[in-house]
Amino acid sequence: MSGNMTFIGGLPVPADHCITSKDNPAVKLYLKLSSQKKERQRYGLFVLEGLRIVEDAVQAGNVEKLFFTEDNFIAFSGEHDLSDIMDRVFIISPEIAKKISLTETTQGVFAVCRIMDCAPVFTENGKYVVLYGLQDPGNVGTIIRTADALGIDGIFMCGSCDLYNPKTLRSTMGSVFRMPVMIINNDDELFSMLKENEVKTMAAVIDADAVKITDIRPEGKQAVFIGNEGNGLSRETADRCDIKVTIPMHGNINSLNAAMAAGILMWEISRDKN
Amino acid sequence: MSGNMTFIGGLPVPADHCITSKDNPAVKLYLKLSSQKKERQRYGLFVLEGLRIVEDAVQAGNVEKLFFTEDNFIAFSGEHDLSDIMDRVFIISPEIAKKISLTETTQGVFAVCRIMDCAPVFTENGKYVVLYGLQDPGNVGTIIRTADALGIDGIFMCGSCDLYNPKTLRSTMGSVFRMPVMIINNDDELFSMLKENEVKTMAAVIDADAVKITDIRPEGKQAVFIGNEGNGLSRETADRCDIKVTIPMHGNINSLNAAMAAGILMWEISRDKN
Repeated sequence: MSGNMTFIGGLPVPADHCITSKDNPAVKLYLKLSSQKKERQRYGLFVLEGLRIVEDAVQAGNVEKLFFTEDNFIAFSGEHDLSDIMDRVFIISPEIAKKISLTETTQGVFAVCRIMDCAPVFTENGKYVVLYGLQDPGNVGTIIRTADALGIDGIFMCGSCDLYNPKTLRSTMGSVFRMPVMIINNDDELFSMLKENEVKTMAAVIDADAVKITDIRPEGKQAVFIGNEGNGLSRETADRCDIKVTIPMHGNINSLNAAMAAGILMWEISRDKN
Repeated sequence: MSGNMTFIGGLPVPADHCITSKDNPAVKLYLKLSSQKKERQRYGLFVLEGLRIVEDAVQAGNVEKLFFTEDNFIAFSGEHDLSDIMDRVFIISPEIAKKISLTETTQGVFAVCRIMDCAPVFTENGKYVVLYGLQDPGNVGTIIRTADALGIDGIFMCGSCDLYNPKTLRSTMGSVFRMPVMIINNDDELFSMLKENEVKTMAAVIDADAVKITDIRPEGKQAVFIGNEGNGLSRETADRCDIKVTIPMHGNINSLNAAMAAGILMWEISRDKN
């Protein structure tokens, strides 16, 4: 850090880190990353908004830039030691906060983070989920969050919506920083990797002839494939899995949404852990 | 039906059932019912939007008024016999459809329905859910939908958000017409009724000392109480239940949202049915 310093809440902030202009390059970059997957991929960066999830990001250590309104900086720096990363802190005006926020009433806390590869580890009794063609960011986020709660060992995303979409990230409630999630959009690579690592692949289907998930022993490495919200797994993908599994239902068979079905399947395969 | 008729798709529609004015009383009533719980309670009516859920309502037989744009009326009447309820059909202009719709791109199909009491029946091995202070319409709707899938016998709502809020109804995906849901906002009445009917009450809590849900035999009449999204059940309410139950978790304990927790608990208590 060099040049003029402004002291805010007793901490030195470089004068050029106090942003009031919408044309500031850091603001422009934030907006690009927020709205476009292409830009996230180009820079290897994504954005976050909200106190709790930014705390998780700071703890995970992959924060590139932090943006706070003045009040929120004072509150945040009072609870977290930011001395090592003060050169990444920017103080923004309430107008800028409003401009970059995706929520109606912003908390005034934002981060730009590095995309980090985080491949799941194949452990002896590892339990995995494959999100195959899921398109709803809320569903993907909820599944990652639930996987974290149930102690699932990793998630693979194939042909699904962007993990780094702000809506997806928000729905994970910070679990994205605790859960190994690997994006692998090539079917052949995905199936080879699972096969090489002796993971039993199980296609979740709505089919009374499939094996009931309650009849599956939660033994060894297992991965359950969850399909698209509207169409489920294609027959081709389901056939490629070792077995087809289904959630036995007493009531209306179409009444489980993708996230709930995934939750129940994860619960069943991780029973022995819990 | 009397007076002038217009024929649309070969069916007779009274001329005064073709609405193009925003000041039409039926349009005004729809908007009031859509936005205000007070008005829904006053009239004993609620509104619905969307092809699938309106089909469910027609099938359930509690439709008071149906609104279609012309194209959608022709499509709908081609698939459903509306002859008995043609006096309840209104044809609306695309502008009116846009005005009353809560979605960005409307399907042009709307209904006004009667609120019907639908008390759950206490069967020998009945499984019930009590939504106690839930405030998110999406969560309530998702829980009703999941309960329908898993064959839960009934839902009681106590101090929760309005069942007839359009967002709640939409999240139920039509399960609201198949699932007995009783609104009972008096704690004492609720507990007495469950006690009189020999229903075992189980408070869902996050507490390592509570009984694991996996250790509960799904025997006899059981009701699981789900608490508010942010705060859970109050200690007072939890203490009033026969036992406290918890979902054993391997990972991050705060990572199950209310709907997912309810889904897993319902899945466990209804295991023997499925």
